[in-house]
Amino acid sequence: MSGLVLIPLPGNEAMAEKLAALLDGELRLPEMRNFPDGETYLRLNVDLHGRHAALVCTLDRPDAKFLPFSFAARTASELGAASVGLIAPYLAYMRQDRRFQPGEALSSHLFAALLSPQIDWLVTVDPHLHRIHSLESIYPVPNRVLHASAAIARWIALNVDKPVLIGRDNESVQWVGEVARATGALVVVLDKTRRADLPKADLAPYKDCTPVLVDDIISTAHTMIETLGELDAAGMKPAVCIGVHAIFANDAYEQLRAASPARIVTTDTIAHESNAIGIAPLLAGAIKDVMV
Amino acid sequence: MSGLVLIPLPGNEAMAEKLAALLDGELRLPEMRNFPDGETYLRLNVDLHGRHAALVCTLDRPDAKFLPFSFAARTASELGAASVGLIAPYLAYMRQDRRFQPGEALSSHLFAALLSPQIDWLVTVDPHLHRIHSLESIYPVPNRVLHASAAIARWIALNVDKPVLIGRDNESVQWVGEVARATGALVVVLDKTRRADLPKADLAPYKDCTPVLVDDIISTAHTMIETLGELDAAGMKPAVCIGVHAIFANDAYEQLRAASPARIVTTDTIAHESNAIGIAPLLAGAIKDVMV
Repeated sequence: MSGLVLIPLPGNEAMAEKLAALLDGELRLPEMRNFPDGETYLRLNVDLHGRHAALVCTLDRPDAKFLPFSFAARTASELGAASVGLIAPYLAYMRQDRRFQPGEALSSHLFAALLSPQIDWLVTVDPHLHRIHSLESIYPVPNRVLHASAAIARWIALNVDKPVLIGRDNESVQWVGEVARATGALVVVLDKTRRADLPKADLAPYKDCTPVLVDDIISTAHTMIETLGELDAAGMKPAVCIGVHAIFANDAYEQLRAASPARIVTTDTIAHESNAIGIAPLLAGAIKDVMV
Repeated sequence: MSGLVLIPLPGNEAMAEKLAALLDGELRLPEMRNFPDGETYLRLNVDLHGRHAALVCTLDRPDAKFLPFSFAARTASELGAASVGLIAPYLAYMRQDRRFQPGEALSSHLFAALLSPQIDWLVTVDPHLHRIHSLESIYPVPNRVLHASAAIARWIALNVDKPVLIGRDNESVQWVGEVARATGALVVVLDKTRRADLPKADLAPYKDCTPVLVDDIISTAHTMIETLGELDAAGMKPAVCIGVHAIFANDAYEQLRAASPARIVTTDTIAHESNAIGIAPLLAGAIKDVMV
């Protein structure tokens, strides 16, 4: 009997299966259904006594996921699990950590305060940290924050001919820069916020390169679509669009495809047809590390 | 400036407005919207300092409601509210308080444990208590549990000609009995679980009466539909169906209507077109009482 049990919440079965294989863990699907009144029935039909329970639950569209996750975590604990961890390849509510207007809910902190007491450890990938400099400051549990940049860089090196990374603005440079360092690809910054008196980025030298747009979250895809338009206007080749987290709000994926990129590629932190970069090996290493 | 602010979560505006009028409170709708990724933005644009915040949030279909409610409650607290209360005319997760099979989530206790730390007081109507004998045993906050039976009895007395209350089985007798005592109406029990060797309830003496079915929750409506069929087979007049909580899972309302009752009536604990019995005055009295 393995010391580690991987328990996927609905939609996370494929990732949990990969992790179970990589970690020699046991994969156990919870029994879950809705009562006619919309309440959730959940059962963990597995002996967890003295074993580590790793709940796999990516947290895009988080509101309806919270209670079922919470029931699973508490129940694992009550069933005697040695530790209860959350593997959330995408972690929700990382944006609102300040009141921009009086009376706003500080959802980053409030969500973290609800989640933290239910888990002993947390593993996530590229949380959308702005003003929060480290996850520890709001999640006071042992955690590992992973970065998909190396996996993305490997994918680019293997799949893109003469890549040139396009930074959208100065804020994106740090993020694009990580990928650039790992690939050795050039970076051109199309600075949205640049001063009008400075010259525009000159794309002419990169006409035979493949532009690569990289972002942590593709949500509405508006920024990417705008950039694709500018690159097209500049006579560049069709670009490859890469995102870590495939949120794709509403019809964003269809809109992005209609903007004619060469390809749209995401990691599998959120299951989506654009997934092409697997992050299970990255997660597996961190789980082994944080569980000890 | 009133000392009481009524803050309805979406769908509870009508009830909050009635309560504000009855209690001379201020009605303030929260600003709420979803980000493209499905996260909730919430803002309480109201001065709550030193005032009582009463969040009105009925909890049918609870999973997606929990986080927004929680953000509102915590934010009200952070904004200096003297107390933060929950008015949940329908309170969720009252069923699963025991493990019928190993590994089941005890959602009654788990939900209460998540909710209780966020509120200073709680008002609800006819929670579906089975083995839990009092709400205090799982919600360790000051609370008032109200009963709609008197309001239902008044409605029957005013609207039903020669009512005879039909009890479905022995479990329902206590509930139907409360309404019966208040109306003085007769009760006939069609005991589903009766021993086959005992005589059936004799409906013959009630042929010119109006049968009245009463239940706390109408969810799938299966039991009511079955009872309507039996009454019809016995040559009784069309029955009036009354429920406290209008859950009506999926197409249950259409199915119940197709079973040809004389009328379907519910209280307004959950907003629904069948609502005919208002419980705002009942709630208002309890709010005044528990807030002190």
